[in-house]
Amino acid sequence: MKIFHIETHEHDEIIDITPLLETFVREEQIENGVLYVQSLHTTAGVTINENADSDVKRDFLRRLDEVFPWRHPKDRHAEGNSAAHLKTSTVGVTQAVLVENGKLVLGTWQGVYFCEFDGPRRRRIAVQAIPAR
Amino acid sequence: MKIFHIETHEHDEIIDITPLLETFVREEQIENGVLYVQSLHTTAGVTINENADSDVKRDFLRRLDEVFPWRHPKDRHAEGNSAAHLKTSTVGVTQAVLVENGKLVLGTWQGVYFCEFDGPRRRRIAVQAIPAR
Amino acid sequence: MKIFHIETHEHDEIIDITPLLETFVREEQIENGVLYVQSLHTTAGVTINENADSDVKRDFLRRLDEVFPWRHPKDRHAEGNSAAHLKTSTVGVTQAVLVENGKLVLGTWQGVYFCEFDGPRRRRIAVQAIPAR
Repeated sequence: MKIFHIETHEHDEIIDITPLLETFVREEQIENGVLYVQSLHTTAGVTINENADSDVKRDFLRRLDEVFPWRHPKDRHAEGNSAAHLKTSTVGVTQAVLVENGKLVLGTWQGVYFCEFDGPRRRRIAVQAIPAR
Repeated sequence: MKIFHIETHEHDEIIDITPLLETFVREEQIENGVLYVQSLHTTAGVTINENADSDVKRDFLRRLDEVFPWRHPKDRHAEGNSAAHLKTSTVGVTQAVLVENGKLVLGTWQGVYFCEFDGPRRRRIAVQAIPAR
Repeated sequence: MKIFHIETHEHDEIIDITPLLETFVREEQIENGVLYVQSLHTTAGVTINENADSDVKRDFLRRLDEVFPWRHPKDRHAEGNSAAHLKTSTVGVTQAVLVENGKLVLGTWQGVYFCEFDGPRRRRIAVQAIPAR
């Protein structure tokens, strides 16, 4: 298992961690199996989504913010970041990605993204790979 | 790892892939471990939900569409399918299912579903099993 | 694989199952790998979220209920619990947690939670661990 640090720069931000994971898979010499990425936070998650048009990221974060608005008159959590907790459980904190012949199995448009919902912050992710046999 | 093709017929559609996965587990002679299903797309996911009443599927897709409507005045993504990206990250692209004694571990009402959010299309899923020992 | 029973007491409820999973990891003598928790139901899921302020739980359940209200004039599912199906697929039924040196890898504020969305009921979760090597 390896811990990576991620520096986020916006309050809500989607960061492509595919290259970092590809390097990990190569260095660990995983041939076939499953790679796991786990955000070690409750206000930041990990998801797989589109790696091509950056407008998808903007639409994604804006729409998620409409469903779970930052300010909510009924929220009781003193820190005031309940929306970030909800967004995190919606996308999930752990993402599994299949590995075959030493490469991440990703569709043409798929990338793995770290999702910051209460930044900017210094964040940590844990990465582990499990061989198929 | 094996790739399966799935033909979808509706714009939004939930397709039971449990039988396909059961066949895979039997053919691969997995006794105990975890099965992974990964959609190779950014506008179609995989989830576990109810396999009994088909009204659940209809309510599921209709309510998800109300939360993430297809048309949104602020969307900037040129392809116009940002809603499908959001629905996909909400249900997730990868689903893990436990395997015991050569069978998928599923509750009485559970089935594994491929979720099409921008069809109809020809889709692909990757399936892999990891033994427990 | 082991099955655990969970008694829920509210209609919507978040129950910390971290201690139960830590005991499982210790008893099974898992050193490094991944632990899986799978809810065997379609109206109850599993997620990782904040273990500190219980107001987060209240905000979490209340906001999720606003996005997927219990009663919806267009719902057709006779059982009337379509909202619970949607909440379950949103948080997911299966949660993976990394394990290192015989301990669950969790951030400072992370705990693993069973999410009841149609209680109170007697529920079941399946737990399995896969070693890294």
